[in-house]
Amino acid sequence: MRLMAFQTQAGRRLGLVQGEDVIDLAAVDADIPTDLIAFLQMGERGRNAAVAAAAIAKPTDRLARSTVRPMIPVDRPGKIVCLGLNYASHVAESPNAKPEYPMVFLRATTSLLADGETIRVRRVSTQLDYEGELVAIVGTRASDVSEADALACVAAYGVFNDGSMRDYQRKTTQWTVGKNFDATGAMGATVVTADALPGGAAGLHLETRLNGQVVQSASTSDMLFGVAETIALLSQCMTFEPGDLLVMGTPSGVGVARKPQLFMKPGDVCEVEIESIGCVRNPIGAATS
Amino acid sequence: MRLMAFQTQAGRRLGLVQGEDVIDLAAVDADIPTDLIAFLQMGERGRNAAVAAAAIAKPTDRLARSTVRPMIPVDRPGKIVCLGLNYASHVAESPNAKPEYPMVFLRATTSLLADGETIRVRRVSTQLDYEGELVAIVGTRASDVSEADALACVAAYGVFNDGSMRDYQRKTTQWTVGKNFDATGAMGATVVTADALPGGAAGLHLETRLNGQVVQSASTSDMLFGVAETIALLSQCMTFEPGDLLVMGTPSGVGVARKPQLFMKPGDVCEVEIESIGCVRNPIGAATS
Repeated sequence: MRLMAFQTQAGRRLGLVQGEDVIDLAAVDADIPTDLIAFLQMGERGRNAAVAAAAIAKPTDRLARSTVRPMIPVDRPGKIVCLGLNYASHVAESPNAKPEYPMVFLRATTSLLADGETIRVRRVSTQLDYEGELVAIVGTRASDVSEADALACVAAYGVFNDGSMRDYQRKTTQWTVGKNFDATGAMGATVVTADALPGGAAGLHLETRLNGQVVQSASTSDMLFGVAETIALLSQCMTFEPGDLLVMGTPSGVGVARKPQLFMKPGDVCEVEIESIGCVRNPIGAATS
Repeated sequence: MRLMAFQTQAGRRLGLVQGEDVIDLAAVDADIPTDLIAFLQMGERGRNAAVAAAAIAKPTDRLARSTVRPMIPVDRPGKIVCLGLNYASHVAESPNAKPEYPMVFLRATTSLLADGETIRVRRVSTQLDYEGELVAIVGTRASDVSEADALACVAAYGVFNDGSMRDYQRKTTQWTVGKNFDATGAMGATVVTADALPGGAAGLHLETRLNGQVVQSASTSDMLFGVAETIALLSQCMTFEPGDLLVMGTPSGVGVARKPQLFMKPGDVCEVEIESIGCVRNPIGAATS
């Protein structure tokens, strides 16, 4: 099931995506939550209610996707856990060794932006890079879960552009500041429930395009630590809560590793697309203080 | 003005601390918010209302501090920005070079615990260390502020024990996992408004005690990047929002740097105290999975 969060004058809405249409679920059935996480926590019961709602939706409940304003699907996630160096191809193009354990940093919500919004560039940084990534959206509280049980905690998957200020990422050994500039981490509006995808969203084609040119192309199966293993390892340390995001790292092709280096500049448009999930597309803004 | 967040059957309450008493402010004046950040955003008007409430508080509004259950003062902070290696004395005892820019990592809210609660130990880690630190609590939205204007964004200061799993902190180059074990970052219940402290809470004595023995002793003036400079530098990158916490790093004396090393174990009690602000005191729990 493909879902989309969008903004109306009434606030946050949750839509069922059917082709180029979005059905405003709560407009059809007021018992369906407008919040994605509340909906995902209903599990199969929620999905059945959404299917039933779609079947009886009036033409006015059915909107053209191109006309609605996408929102970040999860409203203020509790934590945004991001992996670095999680594809062998990206490790190979970097100056770093292959990690023996997930390389983790956190993003704050101030660093997020929605599909279609403008990625913010600050005058202090000149090295804005793209990173196309898979996102796993936690639906169930998870502490110390086994790898076999880990995927049951993931309710849906999405698409992310982990926009990175390379100059700030490398100012110290800690990447956090370079990964937390305001409005640099773009999350796609559409998410797909886990039941509709391969386990761990493995084997999906991921592609990043800058101004229409393919700059990253890989399979999500190439991750060093897959979704299940990552959750199993990290949940030995920290509890995952509904709405937490796991941003699973990027494959090769990033701008900082190219010769010559390729950084994004005002006016560029960057897209990340993952097969069977969706796309996030953002223009790059003019530099501001 | 010294304030304290505490739990009652009615939920979160905000108290004015007077010696060993806590005055339940909203019980006296229902217009005073029970949420610390909402109160701090009222500025001088809020403080005046609290003083007026204290003057007319009935004996039933006045509770013994020893009988109330402390809470984390800020309810789910938007971001918890922590500095590493921010005292020269701590850099000197570490294998690291003195930073040229703040060394930043984030904590998630799942890593927090309140004064008096038990610090959680997980079986996977054997190296739980203490770190006594000053916390600056953001009261005003701040983006690209000058060093001269930065302290105006800080509404209050608190005390923090940045409990760190050294084995996990050093598993990769990124410290984040070792700083984000569940219930390892203890925030003191009492906070003091910025108007009642020296600028940037500088010049205050900070002391950490493990089972009553002093293990860290320093002045907050010894920080490499003070509160104002840190906010000025980081707000060039990320916007600070009301309720965000800045955890300002620890001085020398941490357990991992001692010979022999000193890690906390089940049954220990760790206290961090900062002059004129308060104390956070936590027992260490038995190891669990």
